[in-house]
Amino acid sequence: MSSPKQISLGLSMRYLGYHAAAWRHPSADPDAASKFSHYRYIAQTAEAAKMDMVFLADGIGLRTKDEPPGALCRSHQTLELEPLTLLSALSAVTSHIGLVSTASTTYNEPYHIARKWASLDHLSGGRAGWNIVTSWSDAEARNFNRDKHMDYDLRYERAAEFVEVVKGLWDSWEEDAPLFDKASGIFFDQSKLHALNHDGKHFKVKGPLTIKRTPQGRPILVQAGAAEQGLEIAARSADVVYAAPLDLESAKAYYANLKGRLAKYGRSRDSLKIMPGVTIFVGRTREEAREKFDLLNSLVEPQLGLSYLYGQMGDLSAYPIDGPVPEPENPVVKSMAKNLLALARRENLTIRQLYTTIAAGFGGRILVGTPKDIVDDMQAWVEADAADGFNLCPPVLPLGLDEFVELVLPELRARGMFRTEYAGQTLRENLGLTQPVNRYVGEAAVA
Amino acid sequence: MSSPKQISLGLSMRYLGYHAAAWRHPSADPDAASKFSHYRYIAQTAEAAKMDMVFLADGIGLRTKDEPPGALCRSHQTLELEPLTLLSALSAVTSHIGLVSTASTTYNEPYHIARKWASLDHLSGGRAGWNIVTSWSDAEARNFNRDKHMDYDLRYERAAEFVEVVKGLWDSWEEDAPLFDKASGIFFDQSKLHALNHDGKHFKVKGPLTIKRTPQGRPILVQAGAAEQGLEIAARSADVVYAAPLDLESAKAYYANLKGRLAKYGRSRDSLKIMPGVTIFVGRTREEAREKFDLLNSLVEPQLGLSYLYGQMGDLSAYPIDGPVPEPENPVVKSMAKNLLALARRENLTIRQLYTTIAAGFGGRILVGTPKDIVDDMQAWVEADAADGFNLCPPVLPLGLDEFVELVLPELRARGMFRTEYAGQTLRENLGLTQPVNRYVGEAAVA
Ligand SMILES: Cc1cc2nc3c(=O)[nH]c(=O)nc-3n(C[C@H](O)[C@H](O)[C@H](O)COP(=O)(O)O)c2cc1C
Ligand SMILES: Cc1cc2nc3c(=O)[nH]c(=O)nc-3n(C[C@H](O)[C@H](O)[C@H](O)COP(=O)(O)O)c2cc1C
Repeated sequence: MSSPKQISLGLSMRYLGYHAAAWRHPSADPDAASKFSHYRYIAQTAEAAKMDMVFLADGIGLRTKDEPPGALCRSHQTLELEPLTLLSALSAVTSHIGLVSTASTTYNEPYHIARKWASLDHLSGGRAGWNIVTSWSDAEARNFNRDKHMDYDLRYERAAEFVEVVKGLWDSWEEDAPLFDKASGIFFDQSKLHALNHDGKHFKVKGPLTIKRTPQGRPILVQAGAAEQGLEIAARSADVVYAAPLDLESAKAYYANLKGRLAKYGRSRDSLKIMPGVTIFVGRTREEAREKFDLLNSLVEPQLGLSYLYGQMGDLSAYPIDGPVPEPENPVVKSMAKNLLALARRENLTIRQLYTTIAAGFGGRILVGTPKDIVDDMQAWVEADAADGFNLCPPVLPLGLDEFVELVLPELRARGMFRTEYAGQTLRENLGLTQPVNRYVGEAAVA
Repeated sequence: MSSPKQISLGLSMRYLGYHAAAWRHPSADPDAASKFSHYRYIAQTAEAAKMDMVFLADGIGLRTKDEPPGALCRSHQTLELEPLTLLSALSAVTSHIGLVSTASTTYNEPYHIARKWASLDHLSGGRAGWNIVTSWSDAEARNFNRDKHMDYDLRYERAAEFVEVVKGLWDSWEEDAPLFDKASGIFFDQSKLHALNHDGKHFKVKGPLTIKRTPQGRPILVQAGAAEQGLEIAARSADVVYAAPLDLESAKAYYANLKGRLAKYGRSRDSLKIMPGVTIFVGRTREEAREKFDLLNSLVEPQLGLSYLYGQMGDLSAYPIDGPVPEPENPVVKSMAKNLLALARRENLTIRQLYTTIAAGFGGRILVGTPKDIVDDMQAWVEADAADGFNLCPPVLPLGLDEFVELVLPELRARGMFRTEYAGQTLRENLGLTQPVNRYVGEAAVA
């Protein structure tokens, strides 16, 4: 028997977990998402379990009272800490786990992102990652001088240029540019410091960066593109992709599609890890797992449930919550509203039942079962070329992480699917990725 | 005898110290500014000494080879970590010292600044401060889509609006808005969450912030304005000012001017602390202090010295370094070039001697002497109403800090001028400042 493929594991740790009612769970401290101690415990626990990385999603906007009643989010997803500052603080109290956070190319400047993530890579000794997103909500747009979010094409055009600028800035200093020669007074080799001189459609950035080449060469790049332009950015530049396909067939298709695009950019299939998100409800028995699932679902207050549907279907607050799902009058995202309606019709769901299916895992894939059930499923995905690993999105934190470590991890390890020690010091080493080569190495100086 | 006025002490810790040749000092690790361990030692040492805060200046740009030869900075001031990520990491390994970093209103968005500093305030348990600057260098402008830096008036108009938006966002959540009521499912009191709905000349920002009210009510605001518009921002909003007057008379005038503006904004004279920067060379004897000063000055390589003059006088690389200072042909900042030329003529300085006077303390005030000399000078400034404390800018780090703690601090304490224990937990408490009141408290809800 050949040894099984090793999987990579990330832990999504935004808020208090991914279930909409996480904060109402008996184990939860509802104030924890504003506390460093909460995240320190999670990161140190994930590190003790030898996971590859902790991850923070991001989106910056709350809907306010001038929006329809069914739009208002009144859950714990209104309060948090800012991801970059939080991961920087965590870098000081961890030693091996990767620290990945999201930042939008739509509402940032590439020089700031290049500089902050390079700094985090130094602070953490080579454990930084940037999740590249383009943002989608009007609420976020309204915090950054706009009335509506940007069109898909324009957003992604900006994103593609943004990523190239950031990568260029990360190459500013060749590895051996600093000389530190006290005797001669020569601090660095001017021929190995490079200005970028980027002058494009969206950005004009001269460089160079004021931070030396980082331990990982450059931070890990993460992406979650689903449509064409997002997939191309991922194929060209991403080290990790958090895809979100909900079933095995679409996951296999996504995996084949994305891996198939790598050769065009001179990349091997192993140079990009696909790690779909999954929310796990685990119990010693299936009944216990189901009880945990049902308990949380029963805690989703209707107002909150409706706000989960609002993003796709518009305001449903005028309809009876235990009645059938109506044809949406003003769907916010038409294609997604259509999918949700089809699901409701197919399974004959009420409004309450429909929002519960989304609220349980933020719309991501959900597994409910015993450790064996869970690991069987994971193994099937890995063996079917649907995943290289998983991005765990526990329903409640830290409980869901503790349960994963106690119940699921031993099963993964018993099957030889997950490490017992870190392979290296940097996130890149632990993911099994090679160090990138600086574009200027061997070239004549240009700065 | 009445007890002497207590002073506040900050520590500027950018790079490897404020002397241009810091990295060549025998004690210096020239690579330290890229290492977390360097800053951790400094912050923990300053905390053990009960100082109020560590501070990071910032400016984001390096001159490159397409600029005149006399412009190029080849010192350690080309490599560093990014201040916000660095202070966030330090928050996890310190418990009392304030963490203040600079961010420019010219190249940032107010929502990001409000959010990141609020997060740092939570992470640190109430120790965050923001040094508000508008930036001045073309090199920085060129990293952010511009060819030249913005005019003074426009920069400060933007800055004034920026600061008001940030303050407004920090009031989004009233202190008691979160309810965390698991039983009813009500996470927060909607009437105590406020959108800002700002719509101004430079920014359109809806809010609210996704971070709850911070331990200090809001982070400490720091400013260093010298001209009219900067002074007004300081008078309206700043808790601390790092002014940079070089002599007692101008410091007294600055102090009186700025404190005199506070009443207009309904503020007491004690609500703003003026802490001029000072670079100290201390020895057990005056000779020893002078030797330390001379040693460092002898290490300023001419190319680097010229780059210090370039900012004001333009490129002087064509003139003999030990000859007289020429009338500048293309002065970069005319008024400053005039002042420097006047100084050179008055004291009959060569080019080398002129740049040395600037290179020794980044253009700030310099004290060279015994502990008694230094503290006499500090005490004179405080008693003359020229300062409420000082922002220490050691020539070399960590050496200059260690020497201050060993030699100067005991003298300050012997005279009862500096604390032996922290008064409180937050930076605001230690500075003796009162908690700000949320603008919405007692008002009807608007969000
Ligand atoms: C697991 C996962 C995490 C994501 N995290 C974020 C996020 O934190 N912020 C954000 O604005 N978008 C996030 N997205 C949205 C993606 O960036 C992307 O927009 C989405 O997958 C649709 O792909 P497309 O933009 O190519 O259509 C995430 C998507 C997935 C699948
Ligand atoms: C101690 C001190 C520190 C400063 N730090 C910075 C800084 O980090 N970044 C920056 O762009 N400007 C910095 N400045 C410049 C000031 O923000 C300000 O522009 C300068 O004092 C001139 O005042 P004015 O802008 O009102 O003319 C600093 C000034 C002083 C005195």
